[in-house]
Amino acid sequence: MSIDLKEKARAARLASRPLSALPQERRNAALLEIEAALRANQQRIFEANERDMARAKETDLPLPMQKRLRFNEAKLEEVCQGLRDLAALPDPLGRTTLLRELSPGLVLRRRTCPIGVIGVIFESRPDALVQILSLCLKTGNAVLLKGGTEAQETNSALFETIVKGTDLPEGWCALLRGREEVTQMLALYEDIDLIIPRGSNAFVRMIMENTQIPVLGHSSGICHLYLDASAEPDMAARLAVDAKTQYPAACNAIETLLIHSKAAEAAGAALAALNAAGVALHADSRTAGMLEGMGISYVPLKQEDLGREYGDLELNVVMVDALEEAIEHINAYGSHHTDAIVTDDPDSAEKFKLLVDSAGVYHNCSTRFADGQRYGFGAEVGISTGKLHARGPMGPEGLCTYKYEIEGQGQTVEDFAEGRLQYTHITMEEA
Amino acid sequence: MSIDLKEKARAARLASRPLSALPQERRNAALLEIEAALRANQQRIFEANERDMARAKETDLPLPMQKRLRFNEAKLEEVCQGLRDLAALPDPLGRTTLLRELSPGLVLRRRTCPIGVIGVIFESRPDALVQILSLCLKTGNAVLLKGGTEAQETNSALFETIVKGTDLPEGWCALLRGREEVTQMLALYEDIDLIIPRGSNAFVRMIMENTQIPVLGHSSGICHLYLDASAEPDMAARLAVDAKTQYPAACNAIETLLIHSKAAEAAGAALAALNAAGVALHADSRTAGMLEGMGISYVPLKQEDLGREYGDLELNVVMVDALEEAIEHINAYGSHHTDAIVTDDPDSAEKFKLLVDSAGVYHNCSTRFADGQRYGFGAEVGISTGKLHARGPMGPEGLCTYKYEIEGQGQTVEDFAEGRLQYTHITMEEA
Repeated sequence: MSIDLKEKARAARLASRPLSALPQERRNAALLEIEAALRANQQRIFEANERDMARAKETDLPLPMQKRLRFNEAKLEEVCQGLRDLAALPDPLGRTTLLRELSPGLVLRRRTCPIGVIGVIFESRPDALVQILSLCLKTGNAVLLKGGTEAQETNSALFETIVKGTDLPEGWCALLRGREEVTQMLALYEDIDLIIPRGSNAFVRMIMENTQIPVLGHSSGICHLYLDASAEPDMAARLAVDAKTQYPAACNAIETLLIHSKAAEAAGAALAALNAAGVALHADSRTAGMLEGMGISYVPLKQEDLGREYGDLELNVVMVDALEEAIEHINAYGSHHTDAIVTDDPDSAEKFKLLVDSAGVYHNCSTRFADGQRYGFGAEVGISTGKLHARGPMGPEGLCTYKYEIEGQGQTVEDFAEGRLQYTHITMEEA
Repeated sequence: MSIDLKEKARAARLASRPLSALPQERRNAALLEIEAALRANQQRIFEANERDMARAKETDLPLPMQKRLRFNEAKLEEVCQGLRDLAALPDPLGRTTLLRELSPGLVLRRRTCPIGVIGVIFESRPDALVQILSLCLKTGNAVLLKGGTEAQETNSALFETIVKGTDLPEGWCALLRGREEVTQMLALYEDIDLIIPRGSNAFVRMIMENTQIPVLGHSSGICHLYLDASAEPDMAARLAVDAKTQYPAACNAIETLLIHSKAAEAAGAALAALNAAGVALHADSRTAGMLEGMGISYVPLKQEDLGREYGDLELNVVMVDALEEAIEHINAYGSHHTDAIVTDDPDSAEKFKLLVDSAGVYHNCSTRFADGQRYGFGAEVGISTGKLHARGPMGPEGLCTYKYEIEGQGQTVEDFAEGRLQYTHITMEEA
């Protein structure tokens, strides 16, 4: 164990206490100070990014990754806008979510507060560093950050600029180096309250399997679009194309299109549109015949395809005979991320939303809406497919917990046991 | 792996789907059907309990455990009252906790729903079986139960009565047998969403360390009462005695009394009262002198005592020179369960509540109020010292999660990317 990392985590824990008590004015001012510091140091940051970019070219980093690695003036503007937006958001801390008189003069209050220390492992985009760090600051959490190695010069420049640019409890954020420090972090359950891993499925799974610290995130995004018997053909085609092709690498893009056997027209429209959009179809035996009739080429679907996240212009197509069968398929093969139904029948929609066991259950819109910005959360630290604490896109609320406070006047439990006092349980405010 | 257990977990998962969709009227009616079944089968249940009691006597089970094991008419009445109370509680499911227009005709709704399948391991009290099972039913969750071996005949009789007494999706609840099945359960992360262990610290710790399934609970209850400089002596004495002696085995009883060096009068009153109540004091060097002056005997405090949960009439006494020192002590040695301050100074109280990192932070009342019934939750499945999902007493809300639903009219993300549609993010309702 690197003593350095243990010390960083310990320092983050100690810093988390005064950080949690900072008034919102101070946290919001710090966000704007960070904006100013980034602008003042932009030359240094851009130069660091040039060095990362040069190394990326030398090592033949795939072009999409090189693109994500770029931190230029446009990215800086985006990041600064994000900081201003976050500063303007209402304070997620100190909110009363339950206020109840337990007995006259004995009042229970549930109030939101920071979680404490959060470890975040993120991908190659250096702008993610600023986003995560600022979201933790907004929510009063200390944070240990580990970015992609390919972005290390940019990340260091951004990190140092931010730390020096605002006066916050020392050690409130720390930058980890190397995969080894990530592995070590997983053992520090005394000083880290939550780990949010972002990255490949295998990587996230590895994190989940190797720590006792709670983990929030998604290991895979296997999303479905289901065309019900009454699906409107034009809508079916538009939603299928959007959900698959608008950004195929996104976790909320679909991997399987489910078709009701009585939705022939909608299915035909969707399959033709997907084919025209260049999507390779993995068809089961029943939809294969349909595709042959339409003169659309396909690959025969293999059982293992149903659990694959293509992340590309590939899609499974499966026919079902009933809504219930579609729901069972999604619950069996999906990753509990986001699934949508296209139907004109409100009962089918309600049943789908009730019985599909996913973070997002949509009716007549694209699965691609599963996103913190689109939900209006202002910022997002990831999407959780777990069911505890935060489910779906995690915005500022997901980085908060609460305490139960009681204000009394000397009451004892014995007073109640002996009948001298009685519980009234009058709820004055509830979230 | 016992195939039996795997099948039970699989059956619970499958049953959890229709169970989650049952309307509240059906779930509440089922609770009352269970009451009727218990009454109709009371003779059988009492006889089973007699057999458990006889074996407990033969095997010299400690008397307090024998007492908890007893299931007689009084217990039956308590359990039946609990079922009726639970049936009368508002439905925790299907509650809209966020309603937001994302764009005209595109509406986001966050709605509460069951978690799915919950594994609960509980102690020797057979009435706990009925409480846990009914709380899971109220919240639409399937459940795997493991009770204490010493109560196995009573538990079987209760379980069979409940299963036969109401018509619910088959396999919605199952009773585990033996420690081995508990160990096996820990591996079934595909079919179990949450484990709630109740029992000894070592046992809960073992569960937490040996599963990838999220665990909610508390491994220990090391609670503190802090007498601030301005603590009122009479209140200090009453609260110290209540928090330590009203039920010393409870997790919310205090293990350490912290005393401000300027709170001599309050400290004197509290120590005298504790001594009179038969509490053995483990005193640090500074309070030792005080106790000697009062003629009260004590044991010198050892460092390791600060992390002990006595569960008995024993208490550490530690002097501090400042509120901040008390807060640091609690955060360092406490178990983040429940801690209280006695003070007349509202600023001290506010600082204590803000900076003590515990599920319960109280001012001028006993720590013993940390309890779901006392909070007015109607029922409680345990107390969580973790910070994620549910913190503190876990009532029906703690057994729920939520989904994000979107109702659309064919909207795509591309519509927004191309500027044909704009986000409005008008919040219509918020929790």
